[in-house]
Amino acid sequence: MTQQIIEILAGKARKAVKKSALVSTDQKNEILRDAAATVRQSKDIIVAANKIDMEAAKKRGLDTALLDRLLLNEDRVESMASAIENVASLHDPIGAVIDESTPSNGLHLSRVRTAIGVIAIIYESRPNVTADAAALAIKSGNAAILRGGSEAVNSNHAIYQAFHQALSSSELSSDIVQIVGDQDRALVGDMLRAQGLIDMIIPRGGKSLVKRVQDEACVPVLAHLDGVCHIYVHASANPDMAREIILNAKMRRTGICGAMETLLIDQNFPTPAQLINALIEAGCEVRCDDMIMELDNRTVSADAQDWDTEYLDAIVSARIVSDLDHALDHIEKHSSGHTDAIIAADDKAAEYFLRSVDSAIVMHNSSTQFADGAEFGLGAEIGIATGRLHARGPVALEGLTTYKWIARGNGHVRP
Amino acid sequence: MTQQIIEILAGKARKAVKKSALVSTDQKNEILRDAAATVRQSKDIIVAANKIDMEAAKKRGLDTALLDRLLLNEDRVESMASAIENVASLHDPIGAVIDESTPSNGLHLSRVRTAIGVIAIIYESRPNVTADAAALAIKSGNAAILRGGSEAVNSNHAIYQAFHQALSSSELSSDIVQIVGDQDRALVGDMLRAQGLIDMIIPRGGKSLVKRVQDEACVPVLAHLDGVCHIYVHASANPDMAREIILNAKMRRTGICGAMETLLIDQNFPTPAQLINALIEAGCEVRCDDMIMELDNRTVSADAQDWDTEYLDAIVSARIVSDLDHALDHIEKHSSGHTDAIIAADDKAAEYFLRSVDSAIVMHNSSTQFADGAEFGLGAEIGIATGRLHARGPVALEGLTTYKWIARGNGHVRP
Repeated sequence: MTQQIIEILAGKARKAVKKSALVSTDQKNEILRDAAATVRQSKDIIVAANKIDMEAAKKRGLDTALLDRLLLNEDRVESMASAIENVASLHDPIGAVIDESTPSNGLHLSRVRTAIGVIAIIYESRPNVTADAAALAIKSGNAAILRGGSEAVNSNHAIYQAFHQALSSSELSSDIVQIVGDQDRALVGDMLRAQGLIDMIIPRGGKSLVKRVQDEACVPVLAHLDGVCHIYVHASANPDMAREIILNAKMRRTGICGAMETLLIDQNFPTPAQLINALIEAGCEVRCDDMIMELDNRTVSADAQDWDTEYLDAIVSARIVSDLDHALDHIEKHSSGHTDAIIAADDKAAEYFLRSVDSAIVMHNSSTQFADGAEFGLGAEIGIATGRLHARGPVALEGLTTYKWIARGNGHVRP
Repeated sequence: MTQQIIEILAGKARKAVKKSALVSTDQKNEILRDAAATVRQSKDIIVAANKIDMEAAKKRGLDTALLDRLLLNEDRVESMASAIENVASLHDPIGAVIDESTPSNGLHLSRVRTAIGVIAIIYESRPNVTADAAALAIKSGNAAILRGGSEAVNSNHAIYQAFHQALSSSELSSDIVQIVGDQDRALVGDMLRAQGLIDMIIPRGGKSLVKRVQDEACVPVLAHLDGVCHIYVHASANPDMAREIILNAKMRRTGICGAMETLLIDQNFPTPAQLINALIEAGCEVRCDDMIMELDNRTVSADAQDWDTEYLDAIVSARIVSDLDHALDHIEKHSSGHTDAIIAADDKAAEYFLRSVDSAIVMHNSSTQFADGAEFGLGAEIGIATGRLHARGPVALEGLTTYKWIARGNGHVRP
């Protein structure tokens, strides 16, 4: 039965996408500004709906971190409205010419960006994903089918209503953004297997959600499961720069996917003890190999699984590596393909690292905490992808497009 | 057990890809020219191996078309060698900078093309796919796992040997191209479910093969199932141009995926009978609606399934449509998303068509038979994709790449 629901939703979504191809950038931006204004006007309704979700969540005993992600207050509603307006200010990718050519047959060829089609976003707790995903879908000409978590159902519906209102008086079909309830867990399973109906699935939430989607989906998934990010401090690294970068990469915010989780120090780096000391002084637990343990008795011994752990906390795994190739081997074995960095004054070593490490983002002399769509100048991001096809790293409007080939002739026939 | 075989193959392939990232374009080109020379030198061996396959195929009573696809003679081996050399002459996509920027945080960002990783090619009959796929994989830095059809097993192995020999004396690991036998049908099933081990699957062959791969694969698939290509003759079309284009699009070669299968004629186009007459005179069967039947009594009535049929033969389905929107509705319902064209002197109508039709290739005043990687100036193509993610339309070297983000800083930490 839920399969039929998906068919109906996806059918309406597909029609909305078709119509969207003929809507101008100005019209789409107007809808977004309209939606932002409606979100602001509906502030009280949204906050009241969120209060219901918050109370239910507290009764169910959900933890503080989750309650914080779920919470909407006036400031957060205002941020949500600003974020929608920001999407309106971004360059419209649809219709952009990627490249043009005139091969020897004389046809004029161009590759032009188009919407992907129907995108399902499956998410948890944070109600602002409703607004972000809806805004990005509208701007990129895709239809979004939103499936939020049960804990945020009232908040999500209140936000959705603002978009529905803005869309209803527009050139776009209001089916460009649809929301499905949490009534049936089977619905998610059917979404994951809806090849041909849904073109892409983006999971946003905890690891168990992302893992379930990645394991079960036959529809393409855009996501990252882990952010086990490494920093390798090369023998040539400037000691002060190394200390500043690793402190920032680990401790600025420990809960983000771009935070450093593993520190690899070259055996020829002159001041490893200072790096470890700086981390410990900043309140970080250091789980490490024997060589580092000898440098500082406040460290603890790492076990095998530490090297594959995304702590998202003030904990780091650290080890001494014998050289660049040893660092590369460790990264190849343990990296989640998200972001890995080298600190080195030796440019040749840095270039070798950047070329060799096969992660979505590779960095030189930079904190891994920059791994973020906004920091990369992309505006709002829908997520960070560690898959190998389509879009990689921070995915924003352009990552939500595909292209078609346009061939213009003048009666061309093939000899 | 076959699952373990896939794990071993894919593990070796992954290592070869890693090594390939450090091999220069010149080195890759040298390997390709070496392989081409070895194919030429092994001409007698390859033709002899093919003879064994041909005799077995004849004994098994395989049809003439298949026997023709399977056949290798001296000319065809020479073409194969030239095709490998042609790949050597193409621009190397690996390492190319897609775009660069310096956002306000001051990092220098670039997106650089890298190999996708491990690509499985599952194919039938044509042994030249062995050479094409191996050459494209080597040039694009990907590892290829080749799984040809049982009918071509000796031919494929003889061609593979030439590559193996060229690779063995090179910087690249010979595991960059691996071939698996036809020993076990279960092997293909395990390839289709080898998420994380195989990054992409490309099926090349008949519809039943492509359909099985598309239906069963959880690994991303690059393919097209059907080429139900449409040409819409707008009211404003130049009658002579329309006649020349549709004759070429249907009759130049009827067996290719870019051949026109359905002709839509606007009710206000002045000379529909001439179009139908031209097709019939050229030996084409016309299956059509009542209005066209009235124009020419040599036509036959189309039934419902004709509108979804890829004939790959001298047969066309044809109907009168009331206007551009009617044509678009028909195409939306029946197109396979491969190639669709409009013939029109009215540029506004043409632009509306090009923007509205959501196919991999859309054309104006051109024969659909140009839908081909070589005609599009891409050099050798690995196939034509009608999926919506990653690469669309003719897929060549660039379509076999992904990218990574490189961020270069100078001690950048995030505030």
